[in-house]
Amino acid sequence: MDRNRAEEKLVGIRESDGVPHLSLDIGGTLIKMVYFSSNSSESIDNRVNSSLKDKMSTSSGNLHYGIRNGGLHFTKFETSKISDCIEFISSKQLQHYGDRYYAAPTNDKNIIKATGGGAFKFADLFREKLGVTLDKVDEMDCLVTGSNFLLKAMHHEAFTYIDGQKEFVQIDHKDLYPYLLVNIGSGVSMIKVESDTKFERVSGTSVGGGTFLGLGKLLTNCKSFDELLELSRQGNNRVIDMLVGEIYGGNDYTKIGLASTAIASSFGKPISENKELEDYKAEDVARSLLRMISNNIGQIAYLNALHFGLKRIIFGGFFIRGHAYTMDTISVAVNFWSKGEAKAMFLRHEGFLGALGAFLSYKESGFPDVAHQLLEGFPQNSYCTED
Amino acid sequence: MDRNRAEEKLVGIRESDGVPHLSLDIGGTLIKMVYFSSNSSESIDNRVNSSLKDKMSTSSGNLHYGIRNGGLHFTKFETSKISDCIEFISSKQLQHYGDRYYAAPTNDKNIIKATGGGAFKFADLFREKLGVTLDKVDEMDCLVTGSNFLLKAMHHEAFTYIDGQKEFVQIDHKDLYPYLLVNIGSGVSMIKVESDTKFERVSGTSVGGGTFLGLGKLLTNCKSFDELLELSRQGNNRVIDMLVGEIYGGNDYTKIGLASTAIASSFGKPISENKELEDYKAEDVARSLLRMISNNIGQIAYLNALHFGLKRIIFGGFFIRGHAYTMDTISVAVNFWSKGEAKAMFLRHEGFLGALGAFLSYKESGFPDVAHQLLEGFPQNSYCTED
Repeated sequence: MDRNRAEEKLVGIRESDGVPHLSLDIGGTLIKMVYFSSNSSESIDNRVNSSLKDKMSTSSGNLHYGIRNGGLHFTKFETSKISDCIEFISSKQLQHYGDRYYAAPTNDKNIIKATGGGAFKFADLFREKLGVTLDKVDEMDCLVTGSNFLLKAMHHEAFTYIDGQKEFVQIDHKDLYPYLLVNIGSGVSMIKVESDTKFERVSGTSVGGGTFLGLGKLLTNCKSFDELLELSRQGNNRVIDMLVGEIYGGNDYTKIGLASTAIASSFGKPISENKELEDYKAEDVARSLLRMISNNIGQIAYLNALHFGLKRIIFGGFFIRGHAYTMDTISVAVNFWSKGEAKAMFLRHEGFLGALGAFLSYKESGFPDVAHQLLEGFPQNSYCTED
Repeated sequence: MDRNRAEEKLVGIRESDGVPHLSLDIGGTLIKMVYFSSNSSESIDNRVNSSLKDKMSTSSGNLHYGIRNGGLHFTKFETSKISDCIEFISSKQLQHYGDRYYAAPTNDKNIIKATGGGAFKFADLFREKLGVTLDKVDEMDCLVTGSNFLLKAMHHEAFTYIDGQKEFVQIDHKDLYPYLLVNIGSGVSMIKVESDTKFERVSGTSVGGGTFLGLGKLLTNCKSFDELLELSRQGNNRVIDMLVGEIYGGNDYTKIGLASTAIASSFGKPISENKELEDYKAEDVARSLLRMISNNIGQIAYLNALHFGLKRIIFGGFFIRGHAYTMDTISVAVNFWSKGEAKAMFLRHEGFLGALGAFLSYKESGFPDVAHQLLEGFPQNSYCTED
């Protein structure tokens, strides 16, 4: 449960308003899902067996917004276990709700808006297993739509994270653009967002969340992202990283502004130590890896923001997971390279930008203005839970 | 032996011209040494026992320029085995030559120009073991001095590397500045060079050669940089990296210009594979690591060059070692991100910029103009060998 629950302006939708029930963002590592369930359909939840519920909730980041008549859910599954996702949809019969709203040809009634590469890769699987057509929505479109919506509609969505302090920032709608959206999934996309509709993917890097988990699995015995992240909490990167002071005999390299404690070379220490992988603590390795990747993303993001004259850099994607050290490292990187000129900002719904964008795209197909309804909400009667 | 031996305008110095005999660049991983030995002192070489010679030549990149009266040598040692370096200097009695040229106080006669962090860290060790004082020269100063000198004085120094083809570029002296110098050692420094004397370290990254060797040692059984580099030759990064096509079901993501074969996530494949580190071939891991680091450096370098309006990016440092895949990856990265506008260039003496800069700094202390002598050379009678 988030500390800010009391302050949170919650989002609610009545089933009777006729909202779409399901959208998907199928990435290289995770499937992100946004779905609505009415109270009357809550009984369906009982059809979801407990082992499946376990699979859903083994990782952080699931969100449920409850309202009088139902709730909006943000959930994720591992892409490598897509059968769990399909079983979940089937158990809740979420695939059938599309019928009632979508003006599709009779033979193509069951439509689910989907984005991410998996909307292409798994189209046949969804047709075969659930009898639904994945209506593909462009990934960058969805990320931007989701991000713009959250930044405009949600109170307490964007925040800075400096020295362990989370500070929410309410951005004036008129002053939102331009900004750099950095979505850190398996890989990283950097998008210059100039208006509600104008944006461009200007950069990216292959060193992202997939690198953290992939390299992390090879270097430690961790099996999951959250396990690796948890491990990193207890770690000390200085056991693995080569610091400036270690090269300079304890001195700073003041002339170029590098403190003795700055990292000269990530993972540089094993070079001069006669040790095997097993001789290092897994938590130190995890910490060093997280630091290297977070710092690198922060630096590349800043360099792009600098080039395009964007002072606001907003980081999303499921790599972050509200993890203090990740946000702190990214914030410090942006602050260091920009000499304090630029600030990193994060989003409460960081992982669901694409899925939310796909959810919002239903309106183009004749749905009522979903965004408007989400905005209206039922703040008085609403509740929010996080797994 | 380099293929271009015949074309090479070689560098030569007569001992009688009174040149300094030794300079050092002591980095986090390697000690780079430039020294002159006259023919009369070649007999001293016999004092270097064969086991020490083995230590010198276990890795690539040593260069020896022979002339009628002696030769200029570019050699390196591992910083973690600094005693080998000290033993080598002592065997050749290189520490004594400074006396004859340096107008120092009597009690501080034996001076060696040294740069890199180790000039601070190991000052006491050199005093104790060799009775010499390390005269510290700023690292960035040395890198720039060495690079400028090579680019101006040496024929066939700078080259591009595209599709496996090395092409030497003779840069007009008047058109040399400004350029971005990217020195890839344990860490990476990026320096905007504007004139012979005006430069600024504008950026850098901790993901450098130390990361390649450090992570590489943890991930494979390799003990040395060259072993790891050699291993990477036979590897296939696609076994470890997650490609765009693997997320997109074999499709390109054409809208944003990403081919299906582009890397979406470095080291991303182990995420969805139920394998241990031992199940992957060490050569594939080495290849993927080299690709990730080289590409990342190329991208960050380009972003800096873009910001500062520098079309020429020159890569040096001992990370490269003339390795085809490294240079190819850096070249492709610069070309990709700049949309063909910028080109990566490399240097034949890539690893010795700092040591050469320190060598050239002797002239400030009253030495004859060493640079001038190096330029004059003895091309007719000279020879060049590479280990």
